[in-house]
Amino acid sequence: MIPRYSRPEMVAIWSPETKFRIWYEIEAHACDAQADLGVIPKENAEAVWKAKDVEFNVDRIDEIEAVTKHDVIAFLTHLAEIIGNDEARFVHQGMTSSDVLDTCFNVQLVRAADILIADMEKLLAALKRRALEHKMTIRIGRSHGIHAEPTTMGLTFARFYAEMDRNLNRLKKARMEIATGAISGAVGTFANIDPAVEEHVCAKLGLEVEPISTQVIPRDRHAAFFAALGVVASSIENVATEIRHMQRTEVLEAEEFFSKGQKGSSAMPHKRNPVLTENLTGLARLVRMAVVPAMENVALWHERDISHSSVERNIGPDTTITLDFALARLTMVIDKLVIYPDNMIANMNKFRGLVHSQRVLLALTQKGVSREDSYRLVQRNAMKVWEQGADFMKELKGDPDVTAVMSVAEIEDKFDLGYHTKHVDTIFSRVFG
Amino acid sequence: MIPRYSRPEMVAIWSPETKFRIWYEIEAHACDAQADLGVIPKENAEAVWKAKDVEFNVDRIDEIEAVTKHDVIAFLTHLAEIIGNDEARFVHQGMTSSDVLDTCFNVQLVRAADILIADMEKLLAALKRRALEHKMTIRIGRSHGIHAEPTTMGLTFARFYAEMDRNLNRLKKARMEIATGAISGAVGTFANIDPAVEEHVCAKLGLEVEPISTQVIPRDRHAAFFAALGVVASSIENVATEIRHMQRTEVLEAEEFFSKGQKGSSAMPHKRNPVLTENLTGLARLVRMAVVPAMENVALWHERDISHSSVERNIGPDTTITLDFALARLTMVIDKLVIYPDNMIANMNKFRGLVHSQRVLLALTQKGVSREDSYRLVQRNAMKVWEQGADFMKELKGDPDVTAVMSVAEIEDKFDLGYHTKHVDTIFSRVFG
Amino acid sequence: MIPRYSRPEMVAIWSPETKFRIWYEIEAHACDAQADLGVIPKENAEAVWKAKDVEFNVDRIDEIEAVTKHDVIAFLTHLAEIIGNDEARFVHQGMTSSDVLDTCFNVQLVRAADILIADMEKLLAALKRRALEHKMTIRIGRSHGIHAEPTTMGLTFARFYAEMDRNLNRLKKARMEIATGAISGAVGTFANIDPAVEEHVCAKLGLEVEPISTQVIPRDRHAAFFAALGVVASSIENVATEIRHMQRTEVLEAEEFFSKGQKGSSAMPHKRNPVLTENLTGLARLVRMAVVPAMENVALWHERDISHSSVERNIGPDTTITLDFALARLTMVIDKLVIYPDNMIANMNKFRGLVHSQRVLLALTQKGVSREDSYRLVQRNAMKVWEQGADFMKELKGDPDVTAVMSVAEIEDKFDLGYHTKHVDTIFSRVFG
Amino acid sequence: MIPRYSRPEMVAIWSPETKFRIWYEIEAHACDAQADLGVIPKENAEAVWKAKDVEFNVDRIDEIEAVTKHDVIAFLTHLAEIIGNDEARFVHQGMTSSDVLDTCFNVQLVRAADILIADMEKLLAALKRRALEHKMTIRIGRSHGIHAEPTTMGLTFARFYAEMDRNLNRLKKARMEIATGAISGAVGTFANIDPAVEEHVCAKLGLEVEPISTQVIPRDRHAAFFAALGVVASSIENVATEIRHMQRTEVLEAEEFFSKGQKGSSAMPHKRNPVLTENLTGLARLVRMAVVPAMENVALWHERDISHSSVERNIGPDTTITLDFALARLTMVIDKLVIYPDNMIANMNKFRGLVHSQRVLLALTQKGVSREDSYRLVQRNAMKVWEQGADFMKELKGDPDVTAVMSVAEIEDKFDLGYHTKHVDTIFSRVFG
Repeated sequence: MIPRYSRPEMVAIWSPETKFRIWYEIEAHACDAQADLGVIPKENAEAVWKAKDVEFNVDRIDEIEAVTKHDVIAFLTHLAEIIGNDEARFVHQGMTSSDVLDTCFNVQLVRAADILIADMEKLLAALKRRALEHKMTIRIGRSHGIHAEPTTMGLTFARFYAEMDRNLNRLKKARMEIATGAISGAVGTFANIDPAVEEHVCAKLGLEVEPISTQVIPRDRHAAFFAALGVVASSIENVATEIRHMQRTEVLEAEEFFSKGQKGSSAMPHKRNPVLTENLTGLARLVRMAVVPAMENVALWHERDISHSSVERNIGPDTTITLDFALARLTMVIDKLVIYPDNMIANMNKFRGLVHSQRVLLALTQKGVSREDSYRLVQRNAMKVWEQGADFMKELKGDPDVTAVMSVAEIEDKFDLGYHTKHVDTIFSRVFG
Repeated sequence: MIPRYSRPEMVAIWSPETKFRIWYEIEAHACDAQADLGVIPKENAEAVWKAKDVEFNVDRIDEIEAVTKHDVIAFLTHLAEIIGNDEARFVHQGMTSSDVLDTCFNVQLVRAADILIADMEKLLAALKRRALEHKMTIRIGRSHGIHAEPTTMGLTFARFYAEMDRNLNRLKKARMEIATGAISGAVGTFANIDPAVEEHVCAKLGLEVEPISTQVIPRDRHAAFFAALGVVASSIENVATEIRHMQRTEVLEAEEFFSKGQKGSSAMPHKRNPVLTENLTGLARLVRMAVVPAMENVALWHERDISHSSVERNIGPDTTITLDFALARLTMVIDKLVIYPDNMIANMNKFRGLVHSQRVLLALTQKGVSREDSYRLVQRNAMKVWEQGADFMKELKGDPDVTAVMSVAEIEDKFDLGYHTKHVDTIFSRVFG
Repeated sequence: MIPRYSRPEMVAIWSPETKFRIWYEIEAHACDAQADLGVIPKENAEAVWKAKDVEFNVDRIDEIEAVTKHDVIAFLTHLAEIIGNDEARFVHQGMTSSDVLDTCFNVQLVRAADILIADMEKLLAALKRRALEHKMTIRIGRSHGIHAEPTTMGLTFARFYAEMDRNLNRLKKARMEIATGAISGAVGTFANIDPAVEEHVCAKLGLEVEPISTQVIPRDRHAAFFAALGVVASSIENVATEIRHMQRTEVLEAEEFFSKGQKGSSAMPHKRNPVLTENLTGLARLVRMAVVPAMENVALWHERDISHSSVERNIGPDTTITLDFALARLTMVIDKLVIYPDNMIANMNKFRGLVHSQRVLLALTQKGVSREDSYRLVQRNAMKVWEQGADFMKELKGDPDVTAVMSVAEIEDKFDLGYHTKHVDTIFSRVFG
Repeated sequence: MIPRYSRPEMVAIWSPETKFRIWYEIEAHACDAQADLGVIPKENAEAVWKAKDVEFNVDRIDEIEAVTKHDVIAFLTHLAEIIGNDEARFVHQGMTSSDVLDTCFNVQLVRAADILIADMEKLLAALKRRALEHKMTIRIGRSHGIHAEPTTMGLTFARFYAEMDRNLNRLKKARMEIATGAISGAVGTFANIDPAVEEHVCAKLGLEVEPISTQVIPRDRHAAFFAALGVVASSIENVATEIRHMQRTEVLEAEEFFSKGQKGSSAMPHKRNPVLTENLTGLARLVRMAVVPAMENVALWHERDISHSSVERNIGPDTTITLDFALARLTMVIDKLVIYPDNMIANMNKFRGLVHSQRVLLALTQKGVSREDSYRLVQRNAMKVWEQGADFMKELKGDPDVTAVMSVAEIEDKFDLGYHTKHVDTIFSRVFG
């Protein structure tokens, strides 16, 4: 985790304090269930709840772990120090460390997913607002970085909305992937603990029961989770790339908001760099890099090996923290993005009407000119615009082969921008309902 | 694609013949819709269907493309050669190449997904059959490659079933991700073509309409698709790794089926190598390597650039062909896997009862011995087994500190295997319903 | 491999014919060495060379492999068909299949590396030629896509030259990584074959002896090889990205060469899309995707497992073929790239002198104005240019706080372009010697 | 960075204190060079050294950065607070932030590489020691996890030595890749600063001059650096995998050292899990995951964009810290690895002589039996051993077709282990010189 790319709420999920609190809840609920089953005395189960409002001493636990070299035992030892050795006797009975660790990890991932889902909803709101605002703001559409046909800025925002809406859906599914818990013992047979304990603990923690676990919850779930985050990150890169293009000096159709105190560069005061979206491009790579190791984690040996653990200690926090930060940053960028409609028009007109060549081509075809001939007619006039700086409409009006089939009014009609925006409403109703 | 790792049905989806057939259908259906709208003459739309049963000449199309350097124009030229230049005049009107290319690619991916889904269902059937067959076949569960507690071979198959069932679900969702089509023109505004055409073509091809496209269908969909395949591949590696471990000389709890004519090695005739599952391990890497480039494809410039295309020309066929082959191979491996229950028992007993130490530990705790003392008692007897080849049960019976709290019958009870299998039914009903 | 992204010379390296030819040479040289050692009869060694000019029948070998399911045995059987069963008796004696397969694979990789090295040398020649041609062609340097200070097009080419020169060096080192052979038997102990055979075969094939092998040549070598290719690919993406930016409509400082017959788009004849460099961007992803699986291949089980094999059957040919194609394509793009120096000047002047703000800032500081004050002075004049379309030099001349410390001549001097190119010679001599 | 997988010396390289110290040295040396050139007054250059022994106040710098949103300006402001605003006037003159940032990053990477190189040398020493110790400790070589032919534990250590020695070489080359500095100004033209400054600063910092930079040092260097680390990590996984296999219950040829206080599991006291090497397997994934983003960082826009920065803030420290920890951990594991020679012999003899089948096969061939017949003879006796538990030597002695060509003494000779170790000295002298 890089502090400058993190937000406190997500960071808190991954603190030792939160982790031990979740461990505690798992153990305490498990004791309740064990007591209900008559496996352990009621009073021992109740005694565990004495620690309900106690803050665990992370340093003390670390100290014990330094000796035992086992984190769960260290925690349990510390818990016994709080509630009493005798009272703590039945805590963790029949369980294996992974019951606690894996269930806790999934609780953390679920909470992280909840934040990411809320982040995404905020991003969607921003995108929607800007889409509606610029629904009819004309700009040139570009393929291959080259001017193609007119579109609107609203459509750009709307397609990012649709993409992020799919990502919202993916995040929700990803949350379901890892919203399970397991209390199934050393190799997942429930030999030492009744499945009812698992059911109780999972219900209390808002998790589904893992239908079949080994010592661990199967890691295909986590692979799917991190893969979904990788897709979301790639979409962030997509939006960021658009904005970076819009802000480049020659285009200047938009700029990231530039606060007054901010210095763009130590040497060039006029520069306003799209540093936030460039940063988002890098953050996307960081989120994405977790995907392959998460997939490599799936093939554990037999009922488990611990190779996945160090990977998850890193990618669990780092990926969710980075993605949370990135979503929030992108939301802010979108919210405050300065749009320059005049520059959009100026850019579109850079090649004096060439942008309408496709329409003219089509019109010629519809007038009965063959596809090949139409193409040649359009091309020869277009080349004059391109190479000699001519005006496309004027050239067409002066080309007898064109005027032989199209009237001046018909030619002019092909340069009407309304032609390109006539289905914007349709598209908006598809996207926003 | 590596021929030896491919199967004809999936390969056929990616043939030029199939591609041109799909292109043709898109163009022909689009003409129908255009005629319905009155945009083009009915007879021209009908004329396109003259090519319905004609096999397109791939060599001829390649020849034209060598000149025009544009694949869709080459195809359209060839189509005109078949149905007549005049009749073909309105084909592709208002459309852009990507309308055809992207919709076709998604049709191919949908068909590929259908095969993968069917593959997965066959794999599930095999896993279920073997799970039921070996439901109560005892084997030792292992964590860290070290004996832990008994489990059953049926549980191993059952957990692979549950994992692959999740993968089936992921494949179905992945199919939905890419089951869209777009006929929206040069930058996605429908300037030159009515949205009704898109609706008609998509309905005919079994696709959803892409709510908002640019020149291309957004690539977050494909990233999600290939990511799902990467998860499936990782699960294949997981199963393959289990079998490779089972087959290693010292374990020998299972072997891949060994056909009579097959020579395991040019030099060591007794060797029966798990080459199929080793191969599956490698194939998993090949499927997985498509995930990152598919994600890198998401951030296209403005309304599209063509950087994604070469990537997809590779990973589209290669990944689906490899995964299809891998699923079929794994199904065959599971179906015919030779299981050695006797060796499972022999392995479990390698350390003369140590496997039951967890139960003894628990029993001591339940008898009122403190957790720490119980641990020490179990450990000291376990070490004699480990280091001196003693028998665990016998040692316990001879340890006065143990017999002080547990009777001989109670000690013996802790070595009963039924204890470990008592919840197998519960788990099976969770997994198989 | 995608045929359209391949070149015949590299493809030929990976043909079955080439493979069997290399296998044959390994076996034949091994027989010579064995005969020299007196292990096998001279006449049998000589007999093997009867097949020297015979073309092996790939179909026949495939046919045999279909039965034996072992490729090396199939080949040896076919070889015996050619030179006689009795004569062939000692072929492959003491060797294991991997001795042949791994040594052959490295011969193929070495040959592939030789082509890539030659490709790179051609690319370097093209970059150098263009660098010298445009050594003093002024263009604006950009950071964050925003105008910074002037530079020259020659410097751009020169830095790509320097980067590709490092890549040439990396390719040469990568070649050395995999230029080893091993004939060390079943587990690498030379139990059945004398190390002298390995030495002889390697010397004949231009390889170093692998100091210690198991059944296989260690795969860290191949990981390093493919990693180097991934770096080269990333540099190709770097150059391609620059050109794509230069060609975008608003920038138009360069264009990929556009042959006369080529149609840029089916609908917009004026469009000249940077499709080659976009394609190179995609091809870079394809080369890069081999890096992780090649690294995953390193950790084989004990003396070898065969999981690496399917991966290498793919990435061996695909990665080298794609990279060869990409290097050749990039060389062609660089060679023919159309440069627009006038547009470069026009772009640079887009913000009427702002580009020189850094120099003015420095000049003010040198005149004794504090850093903070200088910054503020430059900023306030720059903002007028930015927001009101003013001319920077004129504004400075009219700002009494500026003219209080700088004369008009001094201000004008700060707009001299020679200032920025004064060290171009130094840099060129660093790069080109 | 995960604290538990880090070591203080490497962590210190990445502290803010170290970073600011390096920034300071760059600025101070640059001032010296500027003064030598007569660009700034000598006394101002000298004044900078007043801060030589001052500890920079990281909190204060962060405070300033919170306002200026620019880290280098924040640092320079703080520096001015220490040495005086007037004295600091010429600091950073003609430089751009990246001159400082990039040169500093490379200094950090060089120092990190130095630690990694030292780590690797320690690992090599451990591997060599264990190789010599177990030079002739017989164990069975395995391909596909299946017994093949005898080898020695010393050869296993020796091949890891050879692999790590290649990695040492790769680390040294990787260090050279990033051991450059650049002080070339806003777009790399030295417009505002003389190349002599760069030369002086680089010489003082032990770096080579970057022959041609833009605003940044080209990122292909860093891609190559992190790729090399990825290869090293993969080799660590390779060694770790071997040890994990050796420690699994059924094999038990080695165990990670098990300290007395350590508890293997909360529930199963007899378990000694190879948790260190499992952990190393996971750490290898973490190091490897940096390779692709480092490659994605190469293609920056024009003279630079800042997308690489967030990636490097993560992978710079995380990857070197993790690899340093992993190398040290592996060295400790190798150093203390408990080897069980008796178990190695017992494992080898598991199949009663089958391990010698390759030798018998060869002997038969040398006796004039055809390859196919020899194969069949060996196979039929081997199958009796495999399926019926027979003894291979005894079966051979009882097979008249075998005894027809081989005497009893000849058969027995084929079971001599010395046969397999006769070239160990040769291999050792290749590896260790």
